[in-house]
Amino acid sequence: MPGTPPTRFVYLGPEGTFAEQALRTVSAADRGSRTPARSVGEALESVRAGEADAALVPLENSIGGAVGVTLDELAEGAPLVITREVILPVEFVLGARPGTPLGSIRTVAAHPQASTQCRGWLRDWLPEAVVVDVLSNGAAASGAATGEYDAAICAPVGATRHRLEVLADKIADHADAVTRFALVSRPGPPPPPTGDDVTSLAVYIAHDRVGALLSVLMELAVRGVNLTRIESRPTGEALGRYVFFLDCTGHVADVRLGEALQGLRRVCADVRFLGSYPRHRWLEGGPVDRPVPAPAGLSDTDYADAAAWLARLRAGDPT
Amino acid sequence: MPGTPPTRFVYLGPEGTFAEQALRTVSAADRGSRTPARSVGEALESVRAGEADAALVPLENSIGGAVGVTLDELAEGAPLVITREVILPVEFVLGARPGTPLGSIRTVAAHPQASTQCRGWLRDWLPEAVVVDVLSNGAAASGAATGEYDAAICAPVGATRHRLEVLADKIADHADAVTRFALVSRPGPPPPPTGDDVTSLAVYIAHDRVGALLSVLMELAVRGVNLTRIESRPTGEALGRYVFFLDCTGHVADVRLGEALQGLRRVCADVRFLGSYPRHRWLEGGPVDRPVPAPAGLSDTDYADAAAWLARLRAGDPT
Amino acid sequence: MPGTPPTRFVYLGPEGTFAEQALRTVSAADRGSRTPARSVGEALESVRAGEADAALVPLENSIGGAVGVTLDELAEGAPLVITREVILPVEFVLGARPGTPLGSIRTVAAHPQASTQCRGWLRDWLPEAVVVDVLSNGAAASGAATGEYDAAICAPVGATRHRLEVLADKIADHADAVTRFALVSRPGPPPPPTGDDVTSLAVYIAHDRVGALLSVLMELAVRGVNLTRIESRPTGEALGRYVFFLDCTGHVADVRLGEALQGLRRVCADVRFLGSYPRHRWLEGGPVDRPVPAPAGLSDTDYADAAAWLARLRAGDPT
Amino acid sequence: MPGTPPTRFVYLGPEGTFAEQALRTVSAADRGSRTPARSVGEALESVRAGEADAALVPLENSIGGAVGVTLDELAEGAPLVITREVILPVEFVLGARPGTPLGSIRTVAAHPQASTQCRGWLRDWLPEAVVVDVLSNGAAASGAATGEYDAAICAPVGATRHRLEVLADKIADHADAVTRFALVSRPGPPPPPTGDDVTSLAVYIAHDRVGALLSVLMELAVRGVNLTRIESRPTGEALGRYVFFLDCTGHVADVRLGEALQGLRRVCADVRFLGSYPRHRWLEGGPVDRPVPAPAGLSDTDYADAAAWLARLRAGDPT
Repeated sequence: MPGTPPTRFVYLGPEGTFAEQALRTVSAADRGSRTPARSVGEALESVRAGEADAALVPLENSIGGAVGVTLDELAEGAPLVITREVILPVEFVLGARPGTPLGSIRTVAAHPQASTQCRGWLRDWLPEAVVVDVLSNGAAASGAATGEYDAAICAPVGATRHRLEVLADKIADHADAVTRFALVSRPGPPPPPTGDDVTSLAVYIAHDRVGALLSVLMELAVRGVNLTRIESRPTGEALGRYVFFLDCTGHVADVRLGEALQGLRRVCADVRFLGSYPRHRWLEGGPVDRPVPAPAGLSDTDYADAAAWLARLRAGDPT
Repeated sequence: MPGTPPTRFVYLGPEGTFAEQALRTVSAADRGSRTPARSVGEALESVRAGEADAALVPLENSIGGAVGVTLDELAEGAPLVITREVILPVEFVLGARPGTPLGSIRTVAAHPQASTQCRGWLRDWLPEAVVVDVLSNGAAASGAATGEYDAAICAPVGATRHRLEVLADKIADHADAVTRFALVSRPGPPPPPTGDDVTSLAVYIAHDRVGALLSVLMELAVRGVNLTRIESRPTGEALGRYVFFLDCTGHVADVRLGEALQGLRRVCADVRFLGSYPRHRWLEGGPVDRPVPAPAGLSDTDYADAAAWLARLRAGDPT
Repeated sequence: MPGTPPTRFVYLGPEGTFAEQALRTVSAADRGSRTPARSVGEALESVRAGEADAALVPLENSIGGAVGVTLDELAEGAPLVITREVILPVEFVLGARPGTPLGSIRTVAAHPQASTQCRGWLRDWLPEAVVVDVLSNGAAASGAATGEYDAAICAPVGATRHRLEVLADKIADHADAVTRFALVSRPGPPPPPTGDDVTSLAVYIAHDRVGALLSVLMELAVRGVNLTRIESRPTGEALGRYVFFLDCTGHVADVRLGEALQGLRRVCADVRFLGSYPRHRWLEGGPVDRPVPAPAGLSDTDYADAAAWLARLRAGDPT
Repeated sequence: MPGTPPTRFVYLGPEGTFAEQALRTVSAADRGSRTPARSVGEALESVRAGEADAALVPLENSIGGAVGVTLDELAEGAPLVITREVILPVEFVLGARPGTPLGSIRTVAAHPQASTQCRGWLRDWLPEAVVVDVLSNGAAASGAATGEYDAAICAPVGATRHRLEVLADKIADHADAVTRFALVSRPGPPPPPTGDDVTSLAVYIAHDRVGALLSVLMELAVRGVNLTRIESRPTGEALGRYVFFLDCTGHVADVRLGEALQGLRRVCADVRFLGSYPRHRWLEGGPVDRPVPAPAGLSDTDYADAAAWLARLRAGDPT
């Protein structure tokens, strides 16, 4: 984001979801405008079109996995870059119209991913209730409010917004589930390195599988670049053709990550750079900071020493 | 499937979807019973419980990617194995109540993955129509039949079943989209090798990422085992903990695949075997057969020669 | 050595050299016959011909490097195997006829490798003396005894045998130089594993260099087999064609070394097994024992577990 | 050799050996002075001391292998660089005083490496003759000329110089044996790239063997740098400590070789650059020219493209 910071923000709506909650942790967004979008595609298109400066969209969930549509949208169309990640704990509550006894509940509305995450709780506490799939956590809350369903699995903010009584909170089977969101902008110089950064890439490899993926990992390993995430998505061409989404430790401004990127550029069919940004470290109760030193022989200083040595060799001074 | 072939089949319902169509290509299922299940989980549980002999569930789609819920269900709970894969072309039609002119359509019901696959067609032919997300292709057809929506994106069989008029067929942006299904049974001896088989695995690696995934690929590469697919799914423990689903070329009865499996067993935190079964080769107009010879030095004969040589060495005859 | 232990020993002569000294550390040789041979080739041929049961020949020196002729003789002709290694400290003395003052010495006879190892001492103490190359340490001592040369660099035992006065001892620049010898027999079952063994191989790789040598190292690395030595020797066919002599940690009876050997057999143009035998550990003042545990996941137990698992998989029990 | 070409040459003597013959193929040496040295060490020291501009010394022989003393001398002391390689066919003749019948020969003088190379011929034609080891081919010819021995194995030029009759020529078992020589100078800018060059290195690796050597090969493999030769020499510190001499395809001025060199500098304990120089291709009847194109993705152009892309990424233009 060259020059001016973003002021017009868009996020995956509707209002009152986890995405809005995540956006509120971004201080610039507190002072700017915040507009909900109906889909990830719509959010990103409004940034591409210049109608918004940045979009906050979900990348992955520690239970449900990658958000495929976000990955697909980032890999195609005009380039966009991630400038920040936000990791947010995901809490589910069981909400119902005030005064509803737990024992009377026969139907529970829930987004399929939400009911999946609360399966154990439902089995223990509402073994007889029928779970009805709906399209969003918001729709679940709304349906419980109108009486269409007896109860809803939703976010705390959804219960509040729809004036539901919280019959049980923290009902997810994994108490520490989190969702990782990305703040996405039009291309610009990346935020400065912090010493603990992430670089995201979309990598298209040649069709012969073993060799090609092994080559990609070797380009990284030889430069000591760590891979914190790898996701595959079909390219749509044919079964068995994938694009790989990689999250690497390091910043595009780091010498060794730069060399690794150049290596990928040379050996892969295509590489799309999706941004370098500070890692949002999240541990137990909240974000933590844990700096990661470069492995022996791979610091910027080691690279500078080796480059100076090579320059001397080429000039005829092999010492 | 030791002894008797399966006779009681279950599939991801409702009736009239792609899964039922895929099951009909399995000859044993033609003669047996076929019961729809409300979810992948329900289908697999009925096999685990012994209420069905085999379940047909979707594994991945060439556009939408992996079917996460199937992978998750296979990785957890009592072991199940894939005994067969079925690859089916995916066709979408626009269906509406008979007599509806295309120009009058204002709302289109569609499962999100279906509307994603038909995005180009919708933009070209119905740019003003609102697309309404529903939970299945069947629900879309049903909604169009009742008049809740003006039209539906659905499978041809769905239009027929709900007596919709097909206003346009083959409306998917990728004409050759396919879905890959798996026929899943309780554990038993795998089907015999055909010379062109697939072996599916769920692999849990140690936390240090680069090294561990690189080790997995090396165990395969050293034995010349080709990887045709790799998917990551979160384990649910924490962000950044994944289980990898691998499809390898070869059969568990092959010597080199056996050696590679043993290697994975030794270097990985855990490996779950998900079956060896004949590859269903699909090319353009239909399934094709293309045998894959073992690389030089990696055939069962080469292994037998090396094993005999080692036995001689150990016996004191190094010739 | 099936059945009866060797009783007829041959060693690289002449008498009174390091090889005889090394042979005397082998207890069976103390009770058997010990015959000097004029060359490594002659020593090994007498074993091949059945005239001797075992030959003691030098393999490498910590200063002078590999003894090429030994490697070449082991790689060609009828197979032989190493059954034992002996590591011996190498000490050089300056010997002269009794009564010769150091200051009067103008010529020093020495084998080129001996004078190389004593270069620093010669420069400091006899900077003006002319060093004359001779063909063996024994020839040097003999030449000093006859008065052909003023002094000789030789082994202590050589000075004694030729009644030379030792003017200076331990004159080698590296005080801890050692020579490694091999006791070589006709093929037979290798000595039993001790938990700290060495396996020696001669490996012929395909002509494309990087890939092939990298493949060899990968076959070892994947099984956690450590390489303690690698020597290249020309095959004689053409410049750039080599045979590699490898010393690996482990015994042919170990499962993981066995698997690695089979891998080499499959990927290499040829592999000759040169024996598995107890490591003679040598540290500072004498031989030491330092057992080397197998890396995690690579013990015989880990292999047995993985093999049992594979057998279960093949039988239809994937647990 | 910055500025002026070398005019004072030294070579491994004595006169009339293969080294002098090799030096005569260097055109500058034809016009300069040519002085024999008594040893490789003496030849290289005279260059280090500035008494000569360049030394011609043997590097390796296609039968006898590496010339250890040359490697050791290049690895230690003040740095020197190879500026040219010369490959020369090695021919041996059997020479004797004129009029000597072959049937009368009882003793044959030969350098051990020469008699090794003619072993088959000696077995077939002079099975009863005693082979006496001498220190050089020249000494063998001289000894035959004085009558000390009945015949000598020597170079054709040696027979001529000592007025011996050639009783048999081309008596080596491998008709196409060659020796590779190096022309060595004090450091200076390397000769310009020709598109078919060699770069020589001495590499010291960390003690853990497999991992370290594997790392070295990976640094080269990832950049597509081919290894045409690898030799190990003991460092003299202890048994099992080696320095590796590598010959790589390419020139220090090439981008990919430069990157590989920097990688070695970073991961190895030490790297000594021993020169980049034109390959002397030798095939059958004489030197041939066979240009080696860079592998896909590894040409200087590919590197330039990747570097430009990285620069754009860092500037905020990810296209």
